Amino acid sequence: MTRKEPADTPLGDAFHLYDTTLRDGAQREGISYSVTDKLAVARLLDDLGVGFIEGGWPGALPKDTEFFARAASGELKLDHAALVAFGATRKAGAKAEQDKQVRALLDSQAPVVTLVAKSDLRHIERALRVDVDEACEMVRDTVSFLVGEGRRVFLDAEHFFDGYAFSPDTALKVLDAGMNAGADVAVLCDTNGGQLPLGLAETVREVKERTGFRLGIHCQDDTSCAVANSVAAVQAGVTHVQCTANGYGERAGNADLFAVTGNLVTKLGMEVLPTGGAAELTRVSHALAEIANLAPYTHQAYVGASAFAHKAGLHASAIKVDPLLYNHIDPASVGNDMRVLVTEMAGRASLELKGRELGVDLAGQPEALTSAVRKVKKLESEGWSFEAADASLELLLRREVDGPQSDVLDEPPFELESYRVVLDHRSDGEVVSEATVKVHVAGQRVIATAEGNGPVHALDAALREALSPHLSWLDSVELADYKVRILPGHPGTDAVTRVLVETSDGEREWTTVGVHGNIVEASWLALCDALVHKSLSEGGNP
Amino acid sequence: MTRKEPADTPLGDAFHLYDTTLRDGAQREGISYSVTDKLAVARLLDDLGVGFIEGGWPGALPKDTEFFARAASGELKLDHAALVAFGATRKAGAKAEQDKQVRALLDSQAPVVTLVAKSDLRHIERALRVDVDEACEMVRDTVSFLVGEGRRVFLDAEHFFDGYAFSPDTALKVLDAGMNAGADVAVLCDTNGGQLPLGLAETVREVKERTGFRLGIHCQDDTSCAVANSVAAVQAGVTHVQCTANGYGERAGNADLFAVTGNLVTKLGMEVLPTGGAAELTRVSHALAEIANLAPYTHQAYVGASAFAHKAGLHASAIKVDPLLYNHIDPASVGNDMRVLVTEMAGRASLELKGRELGVDLAGQPEALTSAVRKVKKLESEGWSFEAADASLELLLRREVDGPQSDVLDEPPFELESYRVVLDHRSDGEVVSEATVKVHVAGQRVIATAEGNGPVHALDAALREALSPHLSWLDSVELADYKVRILPGHPGTDAVTRVLVETSDGEREWTTVGVHGNIVEASWLALCDALVHKSLSEGGNP
Repeated sequence: MTRKEPADTPLGDAFHLYDTTLRDGAQREGISYSVTDKLAVARLLDDLGVGFIEGGWPGALPKDTEFFARAASGELKLDHAALVAFGATRKAGAKAEQDKQVRALLDSQAPVVTLVAKSDLRHIERALRVDVDEACEMVRDTVSFLVGEGRRVFLDAEHFFDGYAFSPDTALKVLDAGMNAGADVAVLCDTNGGQLPLGLAETVREVKERTGFRLGIHCQDDTSCAVANSVAAVQAGVTHVQCTANGYGERAGNADLFAVTGNLVTKLGMEVLPTGGAAELTRVSHALAEIANLAPYTHQAYVGASAFAHKAGLHASAIKVDPLLYNHIDPASVGNDMRVLVTEMAGRASLELKGRELGVDLAGQPEALTSAVRKVKKLESEGWSFEAADASLELLLRREVDGPQSDVLDEPPFELESYRVVLDHRSDGEVVSEATVKVHVAGQRVIATAEGNGPVHALDAALREALSPHLSWLDSVELADYKVRILPGHPGTDAVTRVLVETSDGEREWTTVGVHGNIVEASWLALCDALVHKSLSEGGNP
Repeated sequence: MTRKEPADTPLGDAFHLYDTTLRDGAQREGISYSVTDKLAVARLLDDLGVGFIEGGWPGALPKDTEFFARAASGELKLDHAALVAFGATRKAGAKAEQDKQVRALLDSQAPVVTLVAKSDLRHIERALRVDVDEACEMVRDTVSFLVGEGRRVFLDAEHFFDGYAFSPDTALKVLDAGMNAGADVAVLCDTNGGQLPLGLAETVREVKERTGFRLGIHCQDDTSCAVANSVAAVQAGVTHVQCTANGYGERAGNADLFAVTGNLVTKLGMEVLPTGGAAELTRVSHALAEIANLAPYTHQAYVGASAFAHKAGLHASAIKVDPLLYNHIDPASVGNDMRVLVTEMAGRASLELKGRELGVDLAGQPEALTSAVRKVKKLESEGWSFEAADASLELLLRREVDGPQSDVLDEPPFELESYRVVLDHRSDGEVVSEATVKVHVAGQRVIATAEGNGPVHALDAALREALSPHLSWLDSVELADYKVRILPGHPGTDAVTRVLVETSDGEREWTTVGVHGNIVEASWLALCDALVHKSLSEGGNP
């Protein structure tokens, strides 16, 4: 067994940042962690510096049993966090020391155990089907057994807020039973997630006054207030907060660890992470999304890619003067960056700022800047949009700045002569797509044909077929995401199609855009930009 | 000009539910509304029953100017909401009546104007570069001019909370200037989004006490507390709340209209929508996501597809006994459904209800209903979505209910033998699309070829060429809108494309859906459904 307290955070054991991604977060529809995933999640949370990591429910779920076994065998070394096993109190009418599920908590070798106990009279009577005395005895017996075995115990009082509103005496009796038997923290759970912050803070204050217990909080996001409720509870006196990475969890999810931590650190000045930990929030958030196989949520507070992205041209010139007038915190303090989006509302100032971000210095080149602004405005009036296509914008800006001096931009890695795509819905119902490209690459004229699921897939396949013998880096490059938007035409003109292509080479991703009346041609333009951008970073032609 | 107050909500003008999706929501990275989109958004918000719809910034953005012109010309009929134009106070050192931007607000013919005014001393001095007296004079002059012209004016006090913390006197002077000049509501804006609910509620109470003004609130989500802050502000005394659909907005976004409304209605018992409005929250939320071309957020509070989805095996049987023990509200009260992910028991009730709405009676036909539920579930697992495609859903239900008795469905107006689409990017740079269809119509086999801007346009043109001599109603029918979304495949499968087609016959519009790995085939499926649906309303075959 390892230690029972968080290591080396400035607040030490006086404040618990407690993560339950691996147990409650895994309840989110669509998440299914392997044991290896769980170990990787725990390591990242420990890197960040949370105090407690709840690893799962040993004995109830085979994967969780295995996770604790592998952790105990030395596969998981935690620098900051203490490992926690989650479980239930013993069965009604039995003894804790003989309860299989309780024994599995001991067998997990986790130094800390969080026990869930029903604290709502209705749940005790209708789901547990025992009386309040037996419910309390189940808590008392299980807590004292585990404490006697050297475990630190936290008590999760399930449905606490609804229960306290319905029958305050019952809810408090359950807390009493656990805390008097040796539990360290009484965690008030808003299991159904129906609370709002002002009312919740009042209840927390009242319970604190009536009991004097060390209190914790566990919030679900069903009113979209889980983060606010968690922070309000801290302001009302709790010193233990249970969260999940990115708010993963059942239904609307849980309190987002990153937003809660961002608020505690930057708004309340509480040092709940080891020194330097806050600057890791963005990286760890995105890495945990990858492990969950979910796209990072771009508009997530503090850590989202758009969390400090400014679109309004209105503000761009003022942002240049003092970014902090327009950001609630310095983005770097949570490991994030400010971004200025280039849009129809933008002008010189925002394009110059954006250029700096992309590594294209336009500050001393007023003519290039003027010409770039004119070009962007014209393209945007035709339906182009660069706010999600940095790579295409970078190529446009480089063409203005470097002009004909640039080998790569002057002499692209390949040139198109023509392509043809044929789509057949045959009389037997089969649908087939086939593309032929004629390109010039490395001084040769190459013709290649390929099939695909659809027209763009076929075209991409034919182009690769033609180029891959000549471009050594092409095999590592793949289409990672593809988005299409039909833009209605101006009155009297036809609709155009805008395509965004995200490309990856295994190390980085970049996004390009193409716009045309024909969806296939729009896709072609974005595909070409993607390859030109890659060849630029490869230092030019093969 | 239309009315200045919300119509027929139980709270009337005493409480303002104010939507700014079309202005502040449009600042979200990735959103780009056309004028037609904006009109559709306004209609849906009006269906829901919000009191005020902020349509944009006339004079500053050409699209917004056009939106107000088309609204004023009669294209936008609002049953519940009053239309609002957003704008800034006059320039420093000028006169409001001569200020072009202020005149554009009048020209928009919107009965209500929301004026943004800086209320943070630092912004006044460093971004506006005037002194506090002139800043107040700009507010006073502009408000009294607009009020004199018969407009109702709301004052958005930008950066209010940061400004009030830094220099309370300045912030209050700006409110005074606007309210004494005739503004109706002083809206406190957390522009940088850095507030937490307990502190924000305290400030609101203090400002209310010191001024006695009618107050409003506008929150950004940078601390993940926008919804909580908005609701806390209402509890502290504001009677006007500005939100955006699904929380769309710059950076981390705005306060989500649907979560705020859900909380006000179900938690605080405030009747802020017309009777029956709350049950429309889920439908309107999803439809607005479609128009923004964004996937609905599945874990969104109240309205997300997972908002009432229970995964925990732990609870499943107890949920059957009494679902309300495990849901914070009855999902139906906001138009959503509970889903139990282990035991598939969802769907029947809502599909029966939907059928009734579409004129297909499934009540007495349990077998047809079972089969329809099964079919819808299977199609949805393949990427189909009927939320925005009533016409396709109606055809699916009718096929279950009428079965082979139906002439129209048994014998569709035409049958496809095959089609071929050829796309050429020629060596002269020209891009051409050509389609050939072979169909059977009115007992004949017809072959037709046509060109188009892109593959779908060419296919639509060829089909019309083939059918129009035989289907008298075809000429009145046209493709009104076309949307494409690429859906990521399940692990190990390819992405599929979902196409939504909106068709119009000049009197009504209907929407159909098609899903396939090939975008052209997906479009074809939606086009065919559109024509079959029309022929159904024409009473069958020609």
